Amino acid sequence: MATISFTRGAPSLDIIDVEGLREAADRALREDPAGVTAYGTAVGYRPLREWIADQHGVVPERVIVTNGSMQADAFLFDALVQTGDTVITELPTYDRTLLSLRNRGADVRMVELEPDGIDVAALERVLVAGARPKLAHIIPNFQNPAGYTLSSAKRERLLELARAHEFIVFEDDPYIALRFEGEAIERMVAADPDNVIYASSFSKTVCPGARVGYLVGPEDLIATIVKLATWSYISPNMLAQGIVNQFARSGAIDASIETVKAALRERATALCDALEREIPDARFVRPQGGYFLWVELPRGVDVDALAEAGAERDVQFVKGTDFVLEGGESSLRLAYAGVTPEEIEEGVARLADAYRAVTAGAGAGVA
Amino acid sequence: MATISFTRGAPSLDIIDVEGLREAADRALREDPAGVTAYGTAVGYRPLREWIADQHGVVPERVIVTNGSMQADAFLFDALVQTGDTVITELPTYDRTLLSLRNRGADVRMVELEPDGIDVAALERVLVAGARPKLAHIIPNFQNPAGYTLSSAKRERLLELARAHEFIVFEDDPYIALRFEGEAIERMVAADPDNVIYASSFSKTVCPGARVGYLVGPEDLIATIVKLATWSYISPNMLAQGIVNQFARSGAIDASIETVKAALRERATALCDALEREIPDARFVRPQGGYFLWVELPRGVDVDALAEAGAERDVQFVKGTDFVLEGGESSLRLAYAGVTPEEIEEGVARLADAYRAVTAGAGAGVA
Repeated sequence: MATISFTRGAPSLDIIDVEGLREAADRALREDPAGVTAYGTAVGYRPLREWIADQHGVVPERVIVTNGSMQADAFLFDALVQTGDTVITELPTYDRTLLSLRNRGADVRMVELEPDGIDVAALERVLVAGARPKLAHIIPNFQNPAGYTLSSAKRERLLELARAHEFIVFEDDPYIALRFEGEAIERMVAADPDNVIYASSFSKTVCPGARVGYLVGPEDLIATIVKLATWSYISPNMLAQGIVNQFARSGAIDASIETVKAALRERATALCDALEREIPDARFVRPQGGYFLWVELPRGVDVDALAEAGAERDVQFVKGTDFVLEGGESSLRLAYAGVTPEEIEEGVARLADAYRAVTAGAGAGVA
Repeated sequence: MATISFTRGAPSLDIIDVEGLREAADRALREDPAGVTAYGTAVGYRPLREWIADQHGVVPERVIVTNGSMQADAFLFDALVQTGDTVITELPTYDRTLLSLRNRGADVRMVELEPDGIDVAALERVLVAGARPKLAHIIPNFQNPAGYTLSSAKRERLLELARAHEFIVFEDDPYIALRFEGEAIERMVAADPDNVIYASSFSKTVCPGARVGYLVGPEDLIATIVKLATWSYISPNMLAQGIVNQFARSGAIDASIETVKAALRERATALCDALEREIPDARFVRPQGGYFLWVELPRGVDVDALAEAGAERDVQFVKGTDFVLEGGESSLRLAYAGVTPEEIEEGVARLADAYRAVTAGAGAGVA
């Protein structure tokens, strides 16, 4: 078996509805050839914008469709974050968000993430101590990299803090549709539409290559971002948005989500079962959805060395240090969306072998 | 007849090969489902990047594919232009480029455009007087808004000046494939690949809604831009690039270009003939390709008033003042790519009526 990679937060091809995409492309070009082949405007392809607005129960003026949600993040940061501005993030958090904020010269304050979401008491202490954040970046469902979900009670508390301390909650929610266990929790943007800006994406429900994401937020902020988008690229990709629109409106997206969730449930279970059996030292919380599992190894285990030993055995993961500003040396992220259960079994066996080698000293523990 | 608009630099639907796009979409998803549905990297969809590199006779490392060429411009300016940096542009030039440079705080020096391209003697005087531009932005073929083309001799002289005064020529060339009269002139990037960065697009040869553009330039500059693109959006639209790649490699693009050129020739001829007949005062150069005709009216004609009189008669154009920092009050841009010959006839008749009303005083000259 070739290298097994637990690195990429992306689905494997077998859980993409390629046939459904072919049909959606055909319909998009037959039913609205002018709309999908011409320039649009920076708000996005209007039928898709309206579909998203309907899903959220808001007016279309609260929605902008972008070339993937990372581009949406970039516009949002361009609109709100100046050099030196304080931004709250979770600890750990998505490495690209961290990089994007640091590239803008933001003063990033990371607040510990617990299995039920950001430590709101710790956040309150940071605020009371005088931090004046512009924005708190939160991945509420099946967080990247931890896989954790923010509880309903903590969502309410976070919104109270946002109102009291006058910051915006950036609810970055690409995984929401991928819940395979437990009950869905209300979006923060629905509870407090004027203090929350919400980002999501079709990367996990249609396919990443379509690069279609969106923001839902206050009309004035959306209008500001529409201007930034106009200057950047005139309009986002109309052809891809037309395809996503047909895929969404035909119901193919619902079938696709069911396929993805069933596969993720199976993969998450296979990964957790194999880890419990093969690496009993590993600590983790079984995810209820999404792509990621965060694994903590006993303090003192050198994850750099584990990555090297893994590479020698053709298994890859992302080191915990990538998702924090400091620390994380004994943690790692395993992404299970892009690997089959068979690959997971073999990958964990290799990882366990690497772990034994690292913890028992060089040469020891190798089967 | 509804409002006739000479404003938009975009093709009408009848000259887009929608059937060819449907077939290209189907093939893209059948032949490379993994490649077009997955995340890519910021260099673009590799088969398309290679096709572009082949067209230019360069290695793929000199090419980055982007979400439209305006996004490519934005990355290039982000990489090269700081607040206060001098940038040369043509006078007049594309309004979005002007806005994008001014938003970055660039010191824009506009140099007169003549019917055979930028006035290189005037540019030399600016340079000798001490200007130290980072970049000269040039639209060499069928310039927007003027429709003029830079002669071969002036291209050589411009490159000499770039080498002597150490600036980069930004050869912004979306219209090159749309020559319907005369002989093609060699690209500057081919003559001097290390001092020129070249941008083009599939918006005019496939369709604008695909939002696929690209840069060709020195490897180190392309590598810098790849980093900026990675931070912005991970990868450009893989699905749309996959469709464009199939459209290009199947030869559909060549048939599409022939269709577009034939229509543009017919439309340009209809427009010039009608203007000569209906508004003998209008001065213009018959274009050899592209989308645009620049019309100069006698000094003192108020184009603001003409636009108002046109709007009353349901005909629209873009005022010359949009394409300059000052002046341009007696000029206008007529875009003929999006209007049929019948619409052109009627539109020019309305414009002539508006012109008579404006030049003869209110109430006079109306048929």
